[in-house]
Amino acid sequence: MTPSAKALVPFVSVDHMMQLIHRVGLQQMITGIAECIEEDFRRWEQFDKTPRVAAHSEVGVIELMPTADETHYAFKYVNGHPKNTAEGLQTVTAFGLLADMDTGYPLLLSEMTLLTALRTAAMSALAAKYLAPKGARCMAMIGNGAQSEFQCLAMQALVGIDTVRLYDTDPRATAKCAANLRGTGLTVIPCTTAQHAIEGAQIITTCTADKKNATILSDNMVGPGVHLNAIGGDCPGKTELAPGVLTRAEIFVEYPAQTRIEGEIQQLPADHPVTELWQVITGQAPGRRDARQITLFDSVGFAIEDFSALRYVLTKARDTGLNLPLDLLADPDDPRDLFGMLTRAAPARVA
Amino acid sequence: MTPSAKALVPFVSVDHMMQLIHRVGLQQMITGIAECIEEDFRRWEQFDKTPRVAAHSEVGVIELMPTADETHYAFKYVNGHPKNTAEGLQTVTAFGLLADMDTGYPLLLSEMTLLTALRTAAMSALAAKYLAPKGARCMAMIGNGAQSEFQCLAMQALVGIDTVRLYDTDPRATAKCAANLRGTGLTVIPCTTAQHAIEGAQIITTCTADKKNATILSDNMVGPGVHLNAIGGDCPGKTELAPGVLTRAEIFVEYPAQTRIEGEIQQLPADHPVTELWQVITGQAPGRRDARQITLFDSVGFAIEDFSALRYVLTKARDTGLNLPLDLLADPDDPRDLFGMLTRAAPARVA
Repeated sequence: MTPSAKALVPFVSVDHMMQLIHRVGLQQMITGIAECIEEDFRRWEQFDKTPRVAAHSEVGVIELMPTADETHYAFKYVNGHPKNTAEGLQTVTAFGLLADMDTGYPLLLSEMTLLTALRTAAMSALAAKYLAPKGARCMAMIGNGAQSEFQCLAMQALVGIDTVRLYDTDPRATAKCAANLRGTGLTVIPCTTAQHAIEGAQIITTCTADKKNATILSDNMVGPGVHLNAIGGDCPGKTELAPGVLTRAEIFVEYPAQTRIEGEIQQLPADHPVTELWQVITGQAPGRRDARQITLFDSVGFAIEDFSALRYVLTKARDTGLNLPLDLLADPDDPRDLFGMLTRAAPARVA
Repeated sequence: MTPSAKALVPFVSVDHMMQLIHRVGLQQMITGIAECIEEDFRRWEQFDKTPRVAAHSEVGVIELMPTADETHYAFKYVNGHPKNTAEGLQTVTAFGLLADMDTGYPLLLSEMTLLTALRTAAMSALAAKYLAPKGARCMAMIGNGAQSEFQCLAMQALVGIDTVRLYDTDPRATAKCAANLRGTGLTVIPCTTAQHAIEGAQIITTCTADKKNATILSDNMVGPGVHLNAIGGDCPGKTELAPGVLTRAEIFVEYPAQTRIEGEIQQLPADHPVTELWQVITGQAPGRRDARQITLFDSVGFAIEDFSALRYVLTKARDTGLNLPLDLLADPDDPRDLFGMLTRAAPARVA
């Protein structure tokens, strides 16, 4: 029996996603996803929002990140296991689904390990577009793991940086990142300390993965007029910035209910003022007010960003045919006759 | 490029699931899943539990149902759209995932439209094994849709019923169910009213799908000494039983925090006493106390049941090879070098 069209859900594998990125162009795709995120943040109030649902263990976390508007539903499955790297596994793997709110039927299943790297970079660059000092040209990239190149290229494409200063506790990670950025047009400066990396940078991105309260940036390291893009602190007990940095900065977040649990601001009182980024994008709240201000995008990643990325991929996967039809849904001739479908699928008996 | 073993997740399609059910035998598989559920309910306190996360619209609901123990994580995606049937679509479709808590890596992706029918039937029969009057032989099956045959066969296999009395507002549904149950050894009695269907039944199963507060069983219809298995009322505003039935019954539930929102008991005060079924299974709470008692299993379906069903399928799918390796996870040679994996996947340039 061949499954009917109603039974099939387009699936974008890792291989398909890589082909799609090469077909579209990495920076073009990051820009396209950033446009989708910006559109969706502009209509923030139309979304059904909830903090992600996490299952924690000693060594990591598995999370579900759902959201919906009137027409579409999306969720992402994502794990975070910093110790995986030592075992030859990814710290973060992810996949996601887009569905039709009217029928509840899935429209797209997609790998999201790569896609999360793209949408996180797109989100960081979108925030920096609104918050970084005007004319920012140099970014310090602290933490040179799996996300780092995507962050650098997104900032190049959307914000116009031309120089990145790289630092990681592991020099091999820095060497890997520097090698990968060769030929991108970015001036790449490997650095041996975090202090060295931030010299002259208008944007400082931290993306480290320890599952603990770390101090990647101490209070005395951060001077006026920088934009901090803190993306590594993203679950309870996992932060990157000294509290003194936070209290001197104007803090911007995605979804406060989630960020207060997971972000850098878990270190601050629950009523510490923060600005929701969507309000900056819609013009309801100010972004950067002056050149000397320290702005902080305390990013933990929110479900709407995945929603935006998935709707971008749905269109592209359809247009390019880069997907596999997956026999995911039962589709009996009579929808009430699931049992009959099963019976008719019985292997033929030998007469 | 061929994805590495670490990139691949076994996927059980609808077709594979049907083949698996025929290979194992439907009633044997329901019994096997019921054994897994019983094992997991015995260690209820070891699970990380949360009410499911629902996105409601005017016409339906999409839900995520996660749970985890120390070693495994599972979640199910499931929708409920009663109006789908009229459009040739399933009211309920589902798929699910089992993952390794130690790495966060998925172990199995599976269709769960069929599997949910099996696990729901297994759960109903497991509850009836503990709660139905001794020697129950006859079940009224009210609502003869996609779940009905599975319910009847599970009660036959686990509880020993020999007769089912069928009723549905649509006589075609009853005719379909009766035809499907031919040759199963059950005596099948189609009935023209709910009142007629419940005559002489020791077990009454209600499984109707309207998204509203309906009264499938009114107070005067339910006499002493029956077990009610109410599975159709499973979201806010969707119930099947008159409140008077509830107050006369001893009520058993899966997970009170979820059932008080979604089950029949949403009609009762929030402090109305209920017994958790796992406590009956472990012997910590009494089940049926006497022959004249009315017992009610107010079932809404809980994540642990899907966890149990998925771990059953993982073993069987491995043993039978009935699965497809899905290229779901990125697996770079160096886990920190996601970007390098992407770069190396670029299509070769023509020289």
